[in-house]
Amino acid sequence: MTDAAPRRGRGRPTRTQTQAAPATRDRILAAAREEFSERGYEKTSVRGIAKSAGVDSALVHHYFGTKEQVFEAAIEVAFAPALDAPEKIVEGPLDGVGERLTRFVLGIWENPTSRTPLLAIVRSAVNNDTAAAVFRRLVAAQLLRRIAGRLDVPDAELRAELAAAQLVGVAMLRHVIKVEPLASADLERIVAGVAPVVQGHLTNP
Amino acid sequence: MTDAAPRRGRGRPTRTQTQAAPATRDRILAAAREEFSERGYEKTSVRGIAKSAGVDSALVHHYFGTKEQVFEAAIEVAFAPALDAPEKIVEGPLDGVGERLTRFVLGIWENPTSRTPLLAIVRSAVNNDTAAAVFRRLVAAQLLRRIAGRLDVPDAELRAELAAAQLVGVAMLRHVIKVEPLASADLERIVAGVAPVVQGHLTNP
Repeated sequence: MTDAAPRRGRGRPTRTQTQAAPATRDRILAAAREEFSERGYEKTSVRGIAKSAGVDSALVHHYFGTKEQVFEAAIEVAFAPALDAPEKIVEGPLDGVGERLTRFVLGIWENPTSRTPLLAIVRSAVNNDTAAAVFRRLVAAQLLRRIAGRLDVPDAELRAELAAAQLVGVAMLRHVIKVEPLASADLERIVAGVAPVVQGHLTNP
Repeated sequence: MTDAAPRRGRGRPTRTQTQAAPATRDRILAAAREEFSERGYEKTSVRGIAKSAGVDSALVHHYFGTKEQVFEAAIEVAFAPALDAPEKIVEGPLDGVGERLTRFVLGIWENPTSRTPLLAIVRSAVNNDTAAAVFRRLVAAQLLRRIAGRLDVPDAELRAELAAAQLVGVAMLRHVIKVEPLASADLERIVAGVAPVVQGHLTNP
């Protein structure tokens, strides 16, 4: 990027600077997402993010805090559609919730644009406990617990996690490990095999 | 290690040396497993393995070939019980195959001794395409295909992979990401939720 914001020197940014620049904040977030995607959590530094965004490190700290907090903010954006999804997924008739959740999760993985940041998050979470904690907070607390909250079964949270496990496993074997025939299988064939399982975990008595 | 084998200088080892030393081969394998576990595939070098085993790099190459081949040999040992398992798992009555496979796979993950190398393999496979290829060859080709070969359903390989996906997902969320309540749930509760799913993938008409 050549249109870097004017640098105001080191140290804490002035009030004017922080108020003036939602665009700067977004640029830092985009740079963070790219750095975390390319390097993973451990090898990414706040300094590297700042450099790539064309700002001072202090500005990154000012907007987001620690590296863990930058990571959380960066992946929160990637997860934004997922965090809006539980309502849509559980709103309809309960006997279609398995298929809706399956299509939603596998759909995110089918789309290369959403797959890339997701893959970065998974790689980071598998390799680093801090990144795993962020993943837990976002996915487990926000997504799964909101689904579980609408179920009327005992063990609702555990059930939502077993359902999620089926989908996580499919994503891993299809998109990360790329095991055949699953990696090349038609999505509809997979949905046909997996949606009833997800449904069963969520609603079977 | 202080009991390093006598070094015979650089270059291709002599015939006597290679015949004489199954113990050396085992020591190299143990060192390889440890290095790959600690550092992951990318950061591990043949040189580091040789150093840790107290031998020359040339000896590592002589016994195993490339780094990829050392990795394959190292994880093949870790997978040895799994590679003997398909017979036991599919030998019994077919209506118990889901529970036997579930108990077998989740059992490997419950045991810290077998979990550590497995975790290293998963981390390596998630981060590196070469390691993923090794994982595919061992797990998919040897384990899953042998199970699929005994099933009498269409799409047997895909079904075995969807069943495996349920178990992979449980292992990921329970032991890698450590999502609660799944991470602390009683194993029997998980088996009760998951075995029928695995059974269904494998044998449902």
